[in-house]
Amino acid sequence: MTRERIKERLEILQDSICEKLEIMDGKSSFQEEKWLRPGGGGGRTRVIAGGDVFEKGGVNFSEVFGEMSPELVQSMLGLQSKEISELPQFYASGVSIVIHPKSPMVPITHMNVRYFEMSDGRWWFGGGIDLTPIYVDIQLAKNFHGKMKEVCDHFHEDFYPLFKKQCDDYFYIPHRKEMRGIGGIFFDALHAESQFGKKYSLSKETLLDFIIAVGNTFPEAYAPQVEHGRLIPYGDAELEWQQIRRSRYAEFNLVWDRGTKFGLQTDGRTESILMSMPPTCSWPYQYQVKPGSKEEKCLAFYQKGIDWLSY
Amino acid sequence: MTRERIKERLEILQDSICEKLEIMDGKSSFQEEKWLRPGGGGGRTRVIAGGDVFEKGGVNFSEVFGEMSPELVQSMLGLQSKEISELPQFYASGVSIVIHPKSPMVPITHMNVRYFEMSDGRWWFGGGIDLTPIYVDIQLAKNFHGKMKEVCDHFHEDFYPLFKKQCDDYFYIPHRKEMRGIGGIFFDALHAESQFGKKYSLSKETLLDFIIAVGNTFPEAYAPQVEHGRLIPYGDAELEWQQIRRSRYAEFNLVWDRGTKFGLQTDGRTESILMSMPPTCSWPYQYQVKPGSKEEKCLAFYQKGIDWLSY
Repeated sequence: MTRERIKERLEILQDSICEKLEIMDGKSSFQEEKWLRPGGGGGRTRVIAGGDVFEKGGVNFSEVFGEMSPELVQSMLGLQSKEISELPQFYASGVSIVIHPKSPMVPITHMNVRYFEMSDGRWWFGGGIDLTPIYVDIQLAKNFHGKMKEVCDHFHEDFYPLFKKQCDDYFYIPHRKEMRGIGGIFFDALHAESQFGKKYSLSKETLLDFIIAVGNTFPEAYAPQVEHGRLIPYGDAELEWQQIRRSRYAEFNLVWDRGTKFGLQTDGRTESILMSMPPTCSWPYQYQVKPGSKEEKCLAFYQKGIDWLSY
Repeated sequence: MTRERIKERLEILQDSICEKLEIMDGKSSFQEEKWLRPGGGGGRTRVIAGGDVFEKGGVNFSEVFGEMSPELVQSMLGLQSKEISELPQFYASGVSIVIHPKSPMVPITHMNVRYFEMSDGRWWFGGGIDLTPIYVDIQLAKNFHGKMKEVCDHFHEDFYPLFKKQCDDYFYIPHRKEMRGIGGIFFDALHAESQFGKKYSLSKETLLDFIIAVGNTFPEAYAPQVEHGRLIPYGDAELEWQQIRRSRYAEFNLVWDRGTKFGLQTDGRTESILMSMPPTCSWPYQYQVKPGSKEEKCLAFYQKGIDWLSY
């Protein structure tokens, strides 16, 4: 299976998702910007703003390759550049999405699928989908996790429980002792031979099918969230809580997200990296939820280990 | 000179600065919250909000001591905990300030002075003041740097040029290729024997006098900024630019500031650490200043190496 084939399927995925998101929004459409990376490769950044539903969102495809930087070698392989005779070549392609809706009743969401390959022949897939509802609706949370399980189960019965746990662990904000939302699935270093010690006889072709299926599940899992939330009225209290949750989102991205940190510290494309930032945030001092409020109830849902499917 | 003496002078400094800031604001006053640190020590957090000038600000005193955590040993001494037989004890006290004014015509500002001591007898002072004008007024920038030079020169003629350069280097946002403001002074590891290889025969008592003088210079240097800026009318364009500069401030704090990163990654007191965050921020995608605008002129001032005194 060639890189060309992977790239082609990712580009089709990007097109398909953008089309579906435009239909969900019903008013605004994506603006495309193509860019080239000096060291090799480039991307198609697509941005939606000022929509009926989506205040700020991006669906990006990128394909980058070239020599791995010493920082990348250090961060991915744990090797100092003096330990190796020459810098390896790499190839990476993927689609990544962050959507910030206008209404606090529609969840923020994020999706990413990616392929990585090194000049020594190693390759792997990574990705995931996670949901950040400002207000948690139990039925909608179950529905979302149900879709995650469905796409996983189609490939391997171990995938959902494992990737759900990895998602809980990844999207956790230690300094707040909260997850940024209600999780979803997260996987990395997924290759044909094994996943964290377990053997899966899944071919590279099948794993590509898996990430594409994850990508296609994204609009399907998000549509009910949008359809339900957009009809719910809201006022200042809900908008205030949205600003708080957005600021937690910003904290996660800038302080803890490996990709963001790595990108900013190694002179990545700042505007693309920070496209994930919320359109607005606020940090009032010592914000506290009111006891017994619906905001306080949400905090109890932003925790690891909740079994949404049998909640 | 005892820790008690240092603590006492820092507490008096906190009182004095709060009083002067309240006079500057003319409407709001500080609310105090005392807190204790489980491992030893505590602090007096003082917060001002919703003022005539100050939208959100904090003037904090803290005195913390106890066993250094393995993370602190690693971060400060560059030692893994397995390399040492037992964790050293430490003592740290200081005053730190961040002020976010309501008007985009009044600069954001930050001041910090601190004392650190270890059980092996080593000790040092650190601190600094820096200014983040949303719109740069050259005369006011000169005035501010003039005050910085004045307090430095009173102690050593090398201090201002050295600490000004260190400030330019520290408050730089690499992923934006901008400083967060127009700098000021920044110093660390300042002790009786040397500063970066240079010999200064300044006693510990004199260095304490220096950081207290820096602290007292803070309201004196900031007052003209407030007095001038608060009278200038502004509209939506200025408020938009303020949101952009505030988001850069947030990016600096969360991605690059050593103290913030360290605090958040080692389970510090989150609300105190993030008191420095702007009350509101915004991240529009691909924001760009208009060619020839006053915002574009500001960008040229947020750069390292500007000699404000002879500008």
